Amino acid sequence: MTYVLGIDGGGSKTECILMDDTHQVIGRGQAGAANYQSIGTEAALISIELAIRQAIKLSKPIKIDAICLGLAGVGRPKDIEIAKGLVKGLIDNQSLPITWNLQPSNIVVCNDALIALVGGIGHSVGIVAAVGTGSIILGQNQQGQTKRVGGWGYILGDEGSAYKIAVAGMQAALKSYDGREKSTSLIEAFQQQLSLENIEDLIQVIYGRGWGVKQIAALAPIVDLVAASGDEVANHIIDDAVRELVTATSTVIEAIFTPDSALEIVTTGSVWLGRCKIQERFTSSIVNQFPQVKVIFPRYEPAYGAGLLALGSLGWQHISRQ
Amino acid sequence: MTYVLGIDGGGSKTECILMDDTHQVIGRGQAGAANYQSIGTEAALISIELAIRQAIKLSKPIKIDAICLGLAGVGRPKDIEIAKGLVKGLIDNQSLPITWNLQPSNIVVCNDALIALVGGIGHSVGIVAAVGTGSIILGQNQQGQTKRVGGWGYILGDEGSAYKIAVAGMQAALKSYDGREKSTSLIEAFQQQLSLENIEDLIQVIYGRGWGVKQIAALAPIVDLVAASGDEVANHIIDDAVRELVTATSTVIEAIFTPDSALEIVTTGSVWLGRCKIQERFTSSIVNQFPQVKVIFPRYEPAYGAGLLALGSLGWQHISRQ
Repeated sequence: MTYVLGIDGGGSKTECILMDDTHQVIGRGQAGAANYQSIGTEAALISIELAIRQAIKLSKPIKIDAICLGLAGVGRPKDIEIAKGLVKGLIDNQSLPITWNLQPSNIVVCNDALIALVGGIGHSVGIVAAVGTGSIILGQNQQGQTKRVGGWGYILGDEGSAYKIAVAGMQAALKSYDGREKSTSLIEAFQQQLSLENIEDLIQVIYGRGWGVKQIAALAPIVDLVAASGDEVANHIIDDAVRELVTATSTVIEAIFTPDSALEIVTTGSVWLGRCKIQERFTSSIVNQFPQVKVIFPRYEPAYGAGLLALGSLGWQHISRQ
Repeated sequence: MTYVLGIDGGGSKTECILMDDTHQVIGRGQAGAANYQSIGTEAALISIELAIRQAIKLSKPIKIDAICLGLAGVGRPKDIEIAKGLVKGLIDNQSLPITWNLQPSNIVVCNDALIALVGGIGHSVGIVAAVGTGSIILGQNQQGQTKRVGGWGYILGDEGSAYKIAVAGMQAALKSYDGREKSTSLIEAFQQQLSLENIEDLIQVIYGRGWGVKQIAALAPIVDLVAASGDEVANHIIDDAVRELVTATSTVIEAIFTPDSALEIVTTGSVWLGRCKIQERFTSSIVNQFPQVKVIFPRYEPAYGAGLLALGSLGWQHISRQ
């Protein structure tokens, strides 16, 4: 039997899957964040080791033939080096109950969007629209070509993301309060949800509490609910987000897919789960342009995708399109 | 002779003007920042005292009958209290060569936009469009009613500001690089100005250097120059900024001015000084809607406006419309 490890090293948690060559999940583990850019490589390594240890839970050592580590931000050569350094740190750690049997080609490090694509679709051809706190669209075609659009972060991009929806919601509420935007229930919704006496107190909340991107992005459901209730201004914000996501996705389709190829787009991340039917709006617009496209929710999680990619590095054809 | 102090306490410098009751500037002083929200009240007080000391430069004490302190962020009751506390700190400071002769009504604390309005126009009726790192539009009519639009800061608002123009420029460059926006010279311009090998390195510049709002806003001239050279994408960004500023200004006009009243709008801040004729574009759009409006550059500086407001508190009618 051949065993591989698939690891999803995220900004809030790390997940590890132990997989055999029939794609069976033998074990699962979970630990804290692994985004080395924020917490440092040492802390990231601790999370990854802990997740592996939980996934394995064996008394006798297990032989691992391939490993895939998906991490946010990995793409540029420097980040790939750091990620490979993390895997080297795992191999050097004698205390893990693992007999490593890794060729260099069986150490796969990649962006977390790629493992979300492979896990979400169940094989490596298609597009992932990962839209949570941030946003990125990544596609990979039959020939293994990839195309990325977005993923530039909350200042430079992340169009359609929860952060951008939340900020647009607050901006619209304040514009309405100023008298330069239609009246909107967003004002009342923000006041209620944040227990503000006055919408002007948003200033204190946003600038005075030292909030980061995640806390602000967590306000997106307020906009979602107001949109779902029929508010025109909130729906305009959601429509703008959909338009951005459709443009980004179309760009990926046109760059690496042929017009007639059947194609699946997997939507991952919190934004797709709202009540205002954002996935439906996105689908209707995309299918209108590209009738051969099918939009789906994830079949498997990103760590599972990492497992498939690890198996793929061993030459197992299971991950290619069936 | 009656003397007053007008003080402009800004985020990067503090200016003080000693003015007599004929509006003559008797002395000027300058010191560091006075935005207590960032640097604390003690440091703010030191800057203000230093600017006053420079403005006075006298051996024998001078009698001051009124003082006006304009500070960024002052508007809510809590901020007014803090600003009044700063003035109390000045009065308590025995080392200043000043004999204070202040009634409570002759201690004026207000938002920096109001002193920019009064200084910029030369009296207290009209509108200021203060558009630098941030943006705010403030109007005051004959009856003393004020109306503020914007000023919500770089996350919640500041439409049309240098920060927003810079960010929109970088977003457009990256969208163009992704293939989801027209080609634009913004890419080359950012690469050259920031010595980037690749436009992707913007990520390092913006997220990796701990840059604040001011450093990012300082990139707006890149967008301005590219727009002035005729680039379509950059001009679209400038047009968006103008549209936001026109909407905000129209809202102020409609809120507190009558359609037939002659009205001056003073434009202050770095954004108006670019090469892409942003003030001209703004003026043509505003005058189209409101033919009675005249758009001007500042006649005097904000500290001068603070001096006029201090005199006004003594009942001198000079600051009302002539």
